Amino acid sequence: MKALENLRGRLAELADLSAVQMLAGWDQLVMMPSQAGPARAEQLGTMARVIHERETSDDIGEWLTELDGAELSELDRDIVRIARRDWERARVVPEELAVELARASADGQEIWQRARAEDDYAAFRPALERNLELARERARCVALDGQSMYEALLSDFDFGLRADELRDVFGALGEKLPALVSEAQEHSPRRRLDVPVAAQRAAVESTLARLGVEHTSWRLDVSTHPFSTQIGLDDSRITTRYGDGGVESLLSSLHEYGHSLYERQIDRELARTSLSGGTSMSIHESQSKLWENHVARSPAFAHVLSAELGRGGFAVSPADLHATLVGVEPSEIRVSADPLTYPLHIILRFELELALIEGELSTADLPGAWRDGMHRLLGVEVSGDALGCMQDVHWSDGAFGYFPSYALGCLIAAQLWEAMESDIGAREDGLRECDVAPIQAWLGENVHRYGRRLDTNELIERATGRALDVEPFLRYVAPLAGRPGAAA
Amino acid sequence: MKALENLRGRLAELADLSAVQMLAGWDQLVMMPSQAGPARAEQLGTMARVIHERETSDDIGEWLTELDGAELSELDRDIVRIARRDWERARVVPEELAVELARASADGQEIWQRARAEDDYAAFRPALERNLELARERARCVALDGQSMYEALLSDFDFGLRADELRDVFGALGEKLPALVSEAQEHSPRRRLDVPVAAQRAAVESTLARLGVEHTSWRLDVSTHPFSTQIGLDDSRITTRYGDGGVESLLSSLHEYGHSLYERQIDRELARTSLSGGTSMSIHESQSKLWENHVARSPAFAHVLSAELGRGGFAVSPADLHATLVGVEPSEIRVSADPLTYPLHIILRFELELALIEGELSTADLPGAWRDGMHRLLGVEVSGDALGCMQDVHWSDGAFGYFPSYALGCLIAAQLWEAMESDIGAREDGLRECDVAPIQAWLGENVHRYGRRLDTNELIERATGRALDVEPFLRYVAPLAGRPGAAA
Repeated sequence: MKALENLRGRLAELADLSAVQMLAGWDQLVMMPSQAGPARAEQLGTMARVIHERETSDDIGEWLTELDGAELSELDRDIVRIARRDWERARVVPEELAVELARASADGQEIWQRARAEDDYAAFRPALERNLELARERARCVALDGQSMYEALLSDFDFGLRADELRDVFGALGEKLPALVSEAQEHSPRRRLDVPVAAQRAAVESTLARLGVEHTSWRLDVSTHPFSTQIGLDDSRITTRYGDGGVESLLSSLHEYGHSLYERQIDRELARTSLSGGTSMSIHESQSKLWENHVARSPAFAHVLSAELGRGGFAVSPADLHATLVGVEPSEIRVSADPLTYPLHIILRFELELALIEGELSTADLPGAWRDGMHRLLGVEVSGDALGCMQDVHWSDGAFGYFPSYALGCLIAAQLWEAMESDIGAREDGLRECDVAPIQAWLGENVHRYGRRLDTNELIERATGRALDVEPFLRYVAPLAGRPGAAA
Repeated sequence: MKALENLRGRLAELADLSAVQMLAGWDQLVMMPSQAGPARAEQLGTMARVIHERETSDDIGEWLTELDGAELSELDRDIVRIARRDWERARVVPEELAVELARASADGQEIWQRARAEDDYAAFRPALERNLELARERARCVALDGQSMYEALLSDFDFGLRADELRDVFGALGEKLPALVSEAQEHSPRRRLDVPVAAQRAAVESTLARLGVEHTSWRLDVSTHPFSTQIGLDDSRITTRYGDGGVESLLSSLHEYGHSLYERQIDRELARTSLSGGTSMSIHESQSKLWENHVARSPAFAHVLSAELGRGGFAVSPADLHATLVGVEPSEIRVSADPLTYPLHIILRFELELALIEGELSTADLPGAWRDGMHRLLGVEVSGDALGCMQDVHWSDGAFGYFPSYALGCLIAAQLWEAMESDIGAREDGLRECDVAPIQAWLGENVHRYGRRLDTNELIERATGRALDVEPFLRYVAPLAGRPGAAA
């Protein structure tokens, strides 16, 4: 079984190179002196080229051919299956197109930054057109039988999801959420707390410590935009920011904790194989949203956060803190949206990018379509294109098909939470004491351990006994509108 | 000139991969959670393998053949010359030997750590034998015409140095220094200051800032052993440690600053070619020793350091501080040795490793030879093998030929310092005000900018007008023994 040994050797090597690449990315955002940007860009470019060369090389194809029909253990069968999928997907994109895509993405981001700063959509539009054209070309290369172009792109982030599924769930949400938003503005209005940075920092550090974040295998740092990364086994790094006097640092650190816990609880025997890492963007996002929405925003966990803020020198009652963490107010900004309006921001982006990719919307009409959508879904009037259709980086760098995972994450988190509570009982009493061990264990057993062995839909069905469904999320947000929710 | 373009492309790629490898090494020592060690070892192993594969590949040989006799600019001629040297040197070592060397080095370090902790030379000896045997085998592969085995190994660190040169300079030093040491113990005895960590830290940070260490292109961090690394253009990282209540942090941070300044002042057009980086270990060490010995330990610069410690809350007169920085006391430990006894520690190691490699000393006789040498050179009785012949890591990981650079660095620094003062005048008045710009400029012009274009001896001769010589160093240390020195 030399072919298997060779393949596994290459996969281990690719995992190591990716880990080092991620380290270089983490360092760039957290540690690197600012002037080193150009040199780091070259270094990251070289790493990407070397990895691409080794993950698309002919020898992998030869090993896969040799392994065709071979007797393999269940684990090796999965390793070979996913390795084959990755290799085929990477190989079908011609070299020149890959280079063009990378260049257009880099150019697009630069043009976008300037255009957004000047609220000048006309300056951005040609770059957007170019990204769209190349994304469509790439979609034609990677599309499997029967996949639409949009589905082909979606598979970069969530393998196997279908556009009609998304249309169904987002359609249902888009119909039901707006009414809830109106009621919630009355029942759970947006509030602010002015928490000193020192108290935020103390509360974030001590809360994470109570969740098991130990310095021997985690890092917590500060960066402009919070993110998390897993450099390898026993090396989880999350970041947060403490700027705005509010409670964003508490929510974002629990969010990033959820991402990291997922990666940490993947079966260790999957490390350095094609099965390591989270299975999809939507499942990954469900893990962060579960800790952000269902733990950090629960009335019970507000007791923990209030106590930790208190120890950090800031007094706030659990009830007031909870009200601040769940307050609802439609706004034009996605990243700071509350848990109820957040999916509506995503639905808008999904509708628009689907139409752009399938050729049903022209870039000339995008700003108007954005305005209309914001009005229809959120009742918000857009102040300009900078915070309108140029708000996010994704389209400027060609990442079409990424947005849905943000909303799917909210839905899947709610569905998993209900399945978990029906398995092991309500978590309220435990959360009040920061006893999260049963949650960690249930997630480990039902979601995390599989790594990439199960795709999104299969994982949801196996963990919850049902297909993806919007009802659990609607039950989760109902109390914000003063309606009976999941627990009622 | 496609071959040149291909070669330069590969060299740029290798430089980027090395930069990322160095980043992963820096991170391991400064940032990484402790439990991530095994995963990081795999990642570093993979990076080393990928780099080795690309730097020894056949295509480089083909490009070099095509470039044989081609009309090239002076810069490209040097790039090709050094690329050829590196490629040939890497290619002559058979793959199996390279693997064996790496394994013996890793095993050796592990065995050494345990054996040293238990002061058990018998447990270490077989690993040392294995490293020696493999080093000799490797020396036979890489030796150029007329090179002894030791010289072949020396060329890993200092290309072109000859063993008889080293015997001459170290012989002269070994004769003259012991008498100076005896006198200096009377005239400049070892003293201690008990400086609080906060004052050390404040003084290190503000002194480095006055030397041009800005956060936009430098980092200063803490690690167990001080070191410096250059991740790429405009990304210099130095570390220090603040443990012992003394002034080691001041000396070590100036030392590491010297290493970094060297790398930063290499001509930018040499970046990402075969000519980037310092030319040899001894020249590199001369740059750190110049800032440690001739700046930080000068009576004039003590005014700067005393002022910065004062601002940090610790009062000490320049004279008392200077006396502490240069106090002499023979001891058995190399890394904490004073500037006068330091080279004697190296001479001992040089004599012993030369004899080991050339087969004139057996490992059975090493502990006794160490004891005898310490007694002869430093008048010190060794407490045991742990702080005797097992004191340093180098032999345990197979790095024979490395030690001389430490003493050569002291000698070259003194010789450069004299040449600089004869060019641009005594630095005393400037140093008192921390005006180091003329020093930086002279070093940039005469040493740094060349990168690897000049080898050790050629660089020394061009910068100082003379071959390597022990007299400048003897003049530098003479005042410690109350004798007239360089300035007298």
